[in-house]
Amino acid sequence: MLPPRPRPRAATSPALDLAARYDGVRRQTVALAAPLSAEDGALQSMPDASPVKWHLAHTTWFFETFVLEGRADYAPFDPAFRVLFNSYYVGVGERHPRPERGLLSRPDLASVRAYRAYVDTAMRSLLTAPCDPVTAARIELGLNHEQQHQELILTDVKHLFSRNPAAPVYRAGWPLAQVRPGRAEWIGYAGGLDDFGHAGPGFAFDNESPRHRAYLAPFALASRPVTHGEFASFVGDGGYRRPELWLAAGYDVVVARGWNAPLYWQADAGTWTTFTLHGRVAIDAHTPMCHLSFYEADAYARWAGARLPTELEWERAAREVPIAGNLLESGALHPMPLAEPSPARTPAQLWGDVWEWTRSDYAPYPGYVAPNGALGEYNGKFMSGQYVLRGGSCATPASHLRPTYRNFFAPDTRWQFSGVRLARDIAA
Amino acid sequence: MLPPRPRPRAATSPALDLAARYDGVRRQTVALAAPLSAEDGALQSMPDASPVKWHLAHTTWFFETFVLEGRADYAPFDPAFRVLFNSYYVGVGERHPRPERGLLSRPDLASVRAYRAYVDTAMRSLLTAPCDPVTAARIELGLNHEQQHQELILTDVKHLFSRNPAAPVYRAGWPLAQVRPGRAEWIGYAGGLDDFGHAGPGFAFDNESPRHRAYLAPFALASRPVTHGEFASFVGDGGYRRPELWLAAGYDVVVARGWNAPLYWQADAGTWTTFTLHGRVAIDAHTPMCHLSFYEADAYARWAGARLPTELEWERAAREVPIAGNLLESGALHPMPLAEPSPARTPAQLWGDVWEWTRSDYAPYPGYVAPNGALGEYNGKFMSGQYVLRGGSCATPASHLRPTYRNFFAPDTRWQFSGVRLARDIAA
Amino acid sequence: MLPPRPRPRAATSPALDLAARYDGVRRQTVALAAPLSAEDGALQSMPDASPVKWHLAHTTWFFETFVLEGRADYAPFDPAFRVLFNSYYVGVGERHPRPERGLLSRPDLASVRAYRAYVDTAMRSLLTAPCDPVTAARIELGLNHEQQHQELILTDVKHLFSRNPAAPVYRAGWPLAQVRPGRAEWIGYAGGLDDFGHAGPGFAFDNESPRHRAYLAPFALASRPVTHGEFASFVGDGGYRRPELWLAAGYDVVVARGWNAPLYWQADAGTWTTFTLHGRVAIDAHTPMCHLSFYEADAYARWAGARLPTELEWERAAREVPIAGNLLESGALHPMPLAEPSPARTPAQLWGDVWEWTRSDYAPYPGYVAPNGALGEYNGKFMSGQYVLRGGSCATPASHLRPTYRNFFAPDTRWQFSGVRLARDIAA
Amino acid sequence: MLPPRPRPRAATSPALDLAARYDGVRRQTVALAAPLSAEDGALQSMPDASPVKWHLAHTTWFFETFVLEGRADYAPFDPAFRVLFNSYYVGVGERHPRPERGLLSRPDLASVRAYRAYVDTAMRSLLTAPCDPVTAARIELGLNHEQQHQELILTDVKHLFSRNPAAPVYRAGWPLAQVRPGRAEWIGYAGGLDDFGHAGPGFAFDNESPRHRAYLAPFALASRPVTHGEFASFVGDGGYRRPELWLAAGYDVVVARGWNAPLYWQADAGTWTTFTLHGRVAIDAHTPMCHLSFYEADAYARWAGARLPTELEWERAAREVPIAGNLLESGALHPMPLAEPSPARTPAQLWGDVWEWTRSDYAPYPGYVAPNGALGEYNGKFMSGQYVLRGGSCATPASHLRPTYRNFFAPDTRWQFSGVRLARDIAA
Repeated sequence: MLPPRPRPRAATSPALDLAARYDGVRRQTVALAAPLSAEDGALQSMPDASPVKWHLAHTTWFFETFVLEGRADYAPFDPAFRVLFNSYYVGVGERHPRPERGLLSRPDLASVRAYRAYVDTAMRSLLTAPCDPVTAARIELGLNHEQQHQELILTDVKHLFSRNPAAPVYRAGWPLAQVRPGRAEWIGYAGGLDDFGHAGPGFAFDNESPRHRAYLAPFALASRPVTHGEFASFVGDGGYRRPELWLAAGYDVVVARGWNAPLYWQADAGTWTTFTLHGRVAIDAHTPMCHLSFYEADAYARWAGARLPTELEWERAAREVPIAGNLLESGALHPMPLAEPSPARTPAQLWGDVWEWTRSDYAPYPGYVAPNGALGEYNGKFMSGQYVLRGGSCATPASHLRPTYRNFFAPDTRWQFSGVRLARDIAA
Repeated sequence: MLPPRPRPRAATSPALDLAARYDGVRRQTVALAAPLSAEDGALQSMPDASPVKWHLAHTTWFFETFVLEGRADYAPFDPAFRVLFNSYYVGVGERHPRPERGLLSRPDLASVRAYRAYVDTAMRSLLTAPCDPVTAARIELGLNHEQQHQELILTDVKHLFSRNPAAPVYRAGWPLAQVRPGRAEWIGYAGGLDDFGHAGPGFAFDNESPRHRAYLAPFALASRPVTHGEFASFVGDGGYRRPELWLAAGYDVVVARGWNAPLYWQADAGTWTTFTLHGRVAIDAHTPMCHLSFYEADAYARWAGARLPTELEWERAAREVPIAGNLLESGALHPMPLAEPSPARTPAQLWGDVWEWTRSDYAPYPGYVAPNGALGEYNGKFMSGQYVLRGGSCATPASHLRPTYRNFFAPDTRWQFSGVRLARDIAA
Repeated sequence: MLPPRPRPRAATSPALDLAARYDGVRRQTVALAAPLSAEDGALQSMPDASPVKWHLAHTTWFFETFVLEGRADYAPFDPAFRVLFNSYYVGVGERHPRPERGLLSRPDLASVRAYRAYVDTAMRSLLTAPCDPVTAARIELGLNHEQQHQELILTDVKHLFSRNPAAPVYRAGWPLAQVRPGRAEWIGYAGGLDDFGHAGPGFAFDNESPRHRAYLAPFALASRPVTHGEFASFVGDGGYRRPELWLAAGYDVVVARGWNAPLYWQADAGTWTTFTLHGRVAIDAHTPMCHLSFYEADAYARWAGARLPTELEWERAAREVPIAGNLLESGALHPMPLAEPSPARTPAQLWGDVWEWTRSDYAPYPGYVAPNGALGEYNGKFMSGQYVLRGGSCATPASHLRPTYRNFFAPDTRWQFSGVRLARDIAA
Repeated sequence: MLPPRPRPRAATSPALDLAARYDGVRRQTVALAAPLSAEDGALQSMPDASPVKWHLAHTTWFFETFVLEGRADYAPFDPAFRVLFNSYYVGVGERHPRPERGLLSRPDLASVRAYRAYVDTAMRSLLTAPCDPVTAARIELGLNHEQQHQELILTDVKHLFSRNPAAPVYRAGWPLAQVRPGRAEWIGYAGGLDDFGHAGPGFAFDNESPRHRAYLAPFALASRPVTHGEFASFVGDGGYRRPELWLAAGYDVVVARGWNAPLYWQADAGTWTTFTLHGRVAIDAHTPMCHLSFYEADAYARWAGARLPTELEWERAAREVPIAGNLLESGALHPMPLAEPSPARTPAQLWGDVWEWTRSDYAPYPGYVAPNGALGEYNGKFMSGQYVLRGGSCATPASHLRPTYRNFFAPDTRWQFSGVRLARDIAA
């Protein structure tokens, strides 16, 4: 085995950290829901999305079920919640059906907030003393799980608001400055034999393991993601009406759903507008393109004479780039144009702004084995029919990301902050 | 023409009444929504149902659009509401799609209440002086329209709560007393040539006109509706598994939706329970059966060796019976068993308890012409594919009913308080 | 009861006739299938239609099952056919699913012809002696049943051929002469109390009974059906884009299926063409309009300021008109323009050309009771969700019709030769 | 680059060969259709399958369109066939919709045979002289294309016949001998860096290129495919009712379609039977399992404590094994039990019997570029949402296969002769 490359993130003192991190993550979730009314929090705009109230409860259910349940000093807040807020863990027992999460007017938002407080009290009590390693690992998993739902709170509310003719605003104040980045350039990589996947010692999801060897041919990545302006050229060039640019399954979706522009785009008086968490606005040509499906990303790449990167190509490039950028903490809640060039030969905006679709189906790494028990359902059972995205978005907490992090969605999914960075083959 | 029979309801002094009736109906609507949280009011449990908040707004929209709009002294509360709360009036312009009423977290419940108050103020001001006849007729129509939505508020909330595993209670306190009514008896009618439909002078919907002549063969009606206990015998006799008892279209629905019992019934430990506005309870054998589709009512009648009445048979019987019974004002919000026998040869429970399915498709009466303008869409365009129900239910305001009143729903509809009274042919 | 009016058709000597009629009807069926290849006979173009081979077998199955089965001297041709060619008789046992009739390449057409010959031999042997009344009634029913399938053979082949880009021709030689009929006129009827339904003594289906009394208000019927030219004016006037002209359920179908013209119409270089059993041709303005759904017929009538007749109005008019016209025997296989005016005050083309949609839902007559046994499924179980058509078409055998004959189809059905005759109310 | 390993198949003299190979492949197709009636050849049993008549015509269309069209000495047989028999080549122009291939009773089978003869005459004339390389490559592609359809003729007819209650027999005479193979054993491979994909010089599809380097971890393959008996144990162990054994997307399919056994299996009196091209028979425990979807193959592997191989693992093993086995030429048309052990450390039945699902999604190889023009649609546009199968089946012509051959189907596909060979990880 080649030695694992050092990871750029600083180590933390885990024992003392856990209680503080628990508080921080839990507070962040509540802060994201703060601008929402009881009604905003109760509605479900499509089967893929969930009500914010459900996210608030489900992330709490995770700690109750996998950490607190069965402890002598813990009584469940409400036994019915075990079924109501289970997402998909068959091993835990029955679940309330996902498409019916929007039928639950009760418990109301106040009760769910009380549920959070109740579980937080028990968790803080537990965290006053050092945990055994199994419990610590489960808490760590729960915090990373909750960060995933923080991003979903934003994308689900965005979708809900987009269906309201009044186009409600989640956060007032548009963050965009007038910036005009230069052209994208190609950054070459030599390829060769290398190791990929999580090398420890920090937290990672099971799907990032085991670390394994793979061979890459030489390749190049674009220096920045595709922008709204570039994508508008594709649309203007008849991109949605030219089957030769699309995967056959993608064009079937285009026809069946009548797609003729990206999600949230509207042609208003000759101008493209898009819906954002700041309301409806004209598209900005220099902002990274978001809310693309895999099929649209792939068709764009073909139109541009390029291709999508594989997830290992992306990972190869990313491990040399510090995790920083337009992430949740920036408060922009929308991709932002590249303000200043990144260092020479370094891809910009790898982290944050938009998740970048890769050409890699979401499959187990060689040697992957799902963990035992209900938590083994976390990742493994979804390893078919989806594609990997990398890099995080403007709605992802910075502490949630790693170069080995694998996000995944079905190829027709558009409501995430998902975009595209081009790749191409180069001579050895 | 035969002379119209006198109608049993007392005349009212219309001029003075209208303002008082406006207040009464509007207050009743608010009272029905009072026990509900913002979240209860925002959700839509199926495309047939609407959120309570929408009912509150739409009934207000009706007065704003058809009475206040265009008056010099009236400015719309919010111009966007014209589209948002239009139900189906193509003549008024665009509508927000019915299945998406549950996607509107905004305007919130407080705003809709403010909308009601704003319109009420304008209406009360208008009603201080006598109205011209066209305006008075529109207000009258608006009040009857609002009463229809009062019933829907109850049936839609009931359906929503039934989908919640916690089975929330709309009104605490179960109204049922132990009552054991006798057997149903047959009450005969001679038939012959007679006039049907609205004869004036009070309010009626356009679909009750014109008054017209028809010939009825001799017939008999059951002295009371079919009960839960009787229907349980049908279920126990394999009623849902015997296609020979059903209309072909009805049995197709049984198979496609997997029906094996009425809506809201569950077999819990060998006992049938049902969901009510008072929570989940064991069925009471002597209570009129409710939440039947036309297909189930028809299959039950065939199983019982009888048939459904036609709407004219029902109307013939009803005009001799005063409008009284278990209606909205009783507060029971559930059908109730017959406590004392009705006068000899008089059908009991014709009014209230449950709407009674008839064998009559909802068709225009001979000579029917839909009114001009948007209000002409009120009834006429729905005259296909539905069946007529008569008599009102425990959720219908008493002042809303007449012997000529025609309710109508598609034959697979089950969420209304709909039941069945048997009929049969008799010799001349 | 009023005395039944005499029926205009001549009585026949039933005993001697039955054998001859059996031969005639059976031969007619074979003749209709003669122009078809084995492949033409095997395909099913939609769930509503059946392969011709299936029609040939099912009509034979009817005699085998309801007449021959169980006789000492009869052995079934193939026991598997009992299930394979049962259409919908639950009382007979299992059925092969209707939408899968087009999956049966075996038995092949030659085998089905052998099945017909085998059953015909047994039937002819039976018919050498007089039958008992029950058997005779079943044979009579079987012949009328087979005539219904003769019409379906033509409409089903027409639909199949219409789906083939090569537009195959069933019968060469276009029958239309250049004819220019005059304007339609209104023919008035006084209405009043009258008796309707079958009065005997000849054959009728159970759904035409019992004869019963009804009251009709005065009405008028158009002197001829609506023509292709008149319907083209409706299309040209935006008929398919104006919801105010349609029943709500009808406009839902228009939108969901993208209807913008009648079935089989194509706009070819500015001209409407239509598909016929003689191939694709330009529409003829003076030919009665065919292949309309109930919804289209109703919308046209509203556009024209008229309405559909009820089935009793139609029956009232028809009993004074001899059964003659463009029926199956004319060989035209397409409606034909009115060549010469009918006698004054007599509606023309009541019989043949096109089935005429009525405003009457297909419901049981007062006092109707379905027969016992499997044959009781013939009509009664379809009495919901359909509308009555009257008068026969260019594909109906003349001997099949009566003034009381009730055909019925779902309101969105278009592949039959179905058209529309206007009606309106008149003063008493 | 590592040097490509020598391929085990003998070189052929291409110039002289092409005419002979053309004749051989074309004759084989006709021979496969010989047992079928006109009706057998016309029906389409599901959208995935095509009528045999369509296969006969489409494979001919391929030569007409891509080889003959545009030559001075060639006139099209029927210009309408250009649209009618185009499968999916957007670049060629319009296509007749795939799900409607079963609506074409015309052209009949005799006409399609005439079409084949006409094109064969033109092709043979062309092949009397040496071809230019482009033409030769297209003919080679056409022959490989036709071999693919030979397999589909068999699987499509099998599916059609399976839907007929009479269970018709395609070929009489059951080929199975009583054989009891030993237990499967694990055969280990060291892994490492290697080259994969087509190395020339013979024909290969574009999706087998370019040859490229990849690294494999050590792995083991089972010495033979999973058998019917082994799969019956999975079924008996509740395999279809245990979601923990399945990918989530796979279990969704199990529930939605009500799967509880493999395709074609029926429980008859306590025994599993299956439908074959020789009729319905009891399953044979020792025969390789066929007609599995990817999801079932994957669930079985999980139940058995193993996994599916990747396509590169399979290719690594296969290049050491000569192409021989139970292929189309054996005439068995069904998988067969392993009669004699294969040489030590050599996997048996890699070639033929059943296609083996791999864990690899069907993706472009590194550096893959689709060819220009309509033929570029052959493979590239299907590279999403499907999984790779390797090795051929009892319905694949021997000359059609190579170690680099990639077959692919959607993961819910079951009507191909698709099975599973287990794999597992081993220590380095």
